[in-house]
Amino acid sequence: MTASFYTLQAQDGLARCGRLHTAHGTIDTPCFMPVATLGSVKGLRHRDILESGTQMILANTYHLMLRPGIDTIRQSGGLHNFMNWQKPILTDSGGFQVWSLAQLAKINDDGVTFRSHLDGSAHTLSPRNVIDAQYDLNSTITMPLDQCVNWDAPVETVQESVNRTCRWAEQSQKAFKKRDGYGLFAIVQGALDLEQRALCARNLVQLDLDGYAIGGLSVGEDKATREHVLTATVPLLPSNKPRYLMGVGRPLDIVSAVAQGIDMMDCVLPTRCGRTAKAFTWTGEMNLMNKQYAQDFQPLDATCPCPTCRDHHRSYLHHLFKSKEMLAATLLTLHNVVFYQQLMARLRQAICDGNVTETAHAIENQMKTLS
Amino acid sequence: MTASFYTLQAQDGLARCGRLHTAHGTIDTPCFMPVATLGSVKGLRHRDILESGTQMILANTYHLMLRPGIDTIRQSGGLHNFMNWQKPILTDSGGFQVWSLAQLAKINDDGVTFRSHLDGSAHTLSPRNVIDAQYDLNSTITMPLDQCVNWDAPVETVQESVNRTCRWAEQSQKAFKKRDGYGLFAIVQGALDLEQRALCARNLVQLDLDGYAIGGLSVGEDKATREHVLTATVPLLPSNKPRYLMGVGRPLDIVSAVAQGIDMMDCVLPTRCGRTAKAFTWTGEMNLMNKQYAQDFQPLDATCPCPTCRDHHRSYLHHLFKSKEMLAATLLTLHNVVFYQQLMARLRQAICDGNVTETAHAIENQMKTLS
Repeated sequence: MTASFYTLQAQDGLARCGRLHTAHGTIDTPCFMPVATLGSVKGLRHRDILESGTQMILANTYHLMLRPGIDTIRQSGGLHNFMNWQKPILTDSGGFQVWSLAQLAKINDDGVTFRSHLDGSAHTLSPRNVIDAQYDLNSTITMPLDQCVNWDAPVETVQESVNRTCRWAEQSQKAFKKRDGYGLFAIVQGALDLEQRALCARNLVQLDLDGYAIGGLSVGEDKATREHVLTATVPLLPSNKPRYLMGVGRPLDIVSAVAQGIDMMDCVLPTRCGRTAKAFTWTGEMNLMNKQYAQDFQPLDATCPCPTCRDHHRSYLHHLFKSKEMLAATLLTLHNVVFYQQLMARLRQAICDGNVTETAHAIENQMKTLS
Repeated sequence: MTASFYTLQAQDGLARCGRLHTAHGTIDTPCFMPVATLGSVKGLRHRDILESGTQMILANTYHLMLRPGIDTIRQSGGLHNFMNWQKPILTDSGGFQVWSLAQLAKINDDGVTFRSHLDGSAHTLSPRNVIDAQYDLNSTITMPLDQCVNWDAPVETVQESVNRTCRWAEQSQKAFKKRDGYGLFAIVQGALDLEQRALCARNLVQLDLDGYAIGGLSVGEDKATREHVLTATVPLLPSNKPRYLMGVGRPLDIVSAVAQGIDMMDCVLPTRCGRTAKAFTWTGEMNLMNKQYAQDFQPLDATCPCPTCRDHHRSYLHHLFKSKEMLAATLLTLHNVVFYQQLMARLRQAICDGNVTETAHAIENQMKTLS
């Protein structure tokens, strides 16, 4: 990959608009990636995802390795063909799952051995096989194996994980087959330890990879602490590479991450909340199970262009959730994903117009309406 | 209502093509109605249902009475507005639910008192309130309260249920508010007793209602017996009114019902099987959980025009079902509903072309391919 993987288009304070030029098309940043862990954005057909304004999705190497197996996807012509999504796909490596399913995993310098959370079968993740798997998936953006630790881990544990993450990134770079329009990122770890974060960032930046992610946040720490780490870490990343904040977050977290100079984000919230009756709207969050919506014949959000808001009212959505009709989850997931993409479009516009600070404040105030 | 509710277009043997002229549009018969018990065809957005070729759907008064309540739907402007489906809707009364949830119900000449299967609350269905409820729902076609009995019920029970069904039909007719393009049907009961079926049909036909349904079949009896009852009953129904076979069935049941002169059908199979990995195709039924599809990169049915067959292969569907991804149910339900509508279109064409017998045989032979 060359520097042209990312081009900066506009800046407003620390916030930036840019473009990612990939083998699967050029997309605008800052961008939000809905989560398609197993090769589907839960409940959404690919036409719906396309029409939502989604430019790139996130899938998970670890999960796809277990089901359906990398070989099946390779034989089908890669993950784009397997799931019929022809725009960019970023695949996470499985480092996060190693942490979140820690009781099933053993980690050492060679990688991770673990038992499947599905059937107990033994598997290995190594810096090399994770890169190879993502090559077979034909992932647009490959994430290396990293080691995430608890936010309150002792300093020695944090140091060890940072060292390992840096060594693994180097090994990953050697294993990665360079192709135009495909990228390999590195992941900055270091828990809440700013010194370790800085050390990790410096080491990884020297590798001159195609982009830089910030991992190990949104794992239990409070919001102020997370923003503190973000403020300290983002300036250590090269300005000519995309910056990806992993697993974040709620709409206002996204607003503040963009204000700090983040270019890419993913989160399960719009889809998971879509299944649990929580709607994101410009006036705040709504729980559609709430009785107050039983005879509320307004759309979820009158300003929203999504099919759910155009076609249906709150009363119907409330009824579908109360009756456990699966259409409820599909309709609300669709709305939530469109909401997130509208939020990103609004932030991109604000950066181009040079009023991202005012826009961020306006969004914050708007979203307090319901609460 | 006038006779113009139904016009006969073509006949081939007993099979017939016609048109239903309703307040919500004119549709072609024979037609298949996907089931939307609670106001949603499970897993399908209204655009998908429209694009599937579906002309009319079936909802259920009993279920909607319990959730969300008739009043909520009335306030929203009727069921068409509540669920955003502007084509015809037929609502079943709840007579079938009284039978299938019999342990919760007490039946006498005034109607049925029952406990909600949801919260145990007490409710009443009477010939009158069921008609009123369907008026509030703004149902295109209203079904009266009837009494369904076990297929092997003693003759006295069958007689009693036929008498009651006839009396209730008369009371229903008095309660029904006539409006252009809206229809009230009657339901022929009588279990497997041809004499009782004939008695019931004769009594109901005298009422000169807008259409005639055959109920109390597909409740456990074998296929030959069902066809025997059908063969005996259909000729007793007026040829200038639509004939609706309730709750039937598998694709080949539909083929034989159409050959006997049935105009309308409904069944949970295409949607329920869509959720349980069973696909209906022109070469037979497939269970997508079956391991043989794990690396099968063909579409479900290469001749099918549905989005699932155009966009995805069996391997992906297999993976989604194995992984319990909700998209699996949506994609397969969509295919199954399109398959049923394609089947109906093929049968309508065959009737117009005068080759329904050959077509029925051809379909039967085709569908044996997989089994």
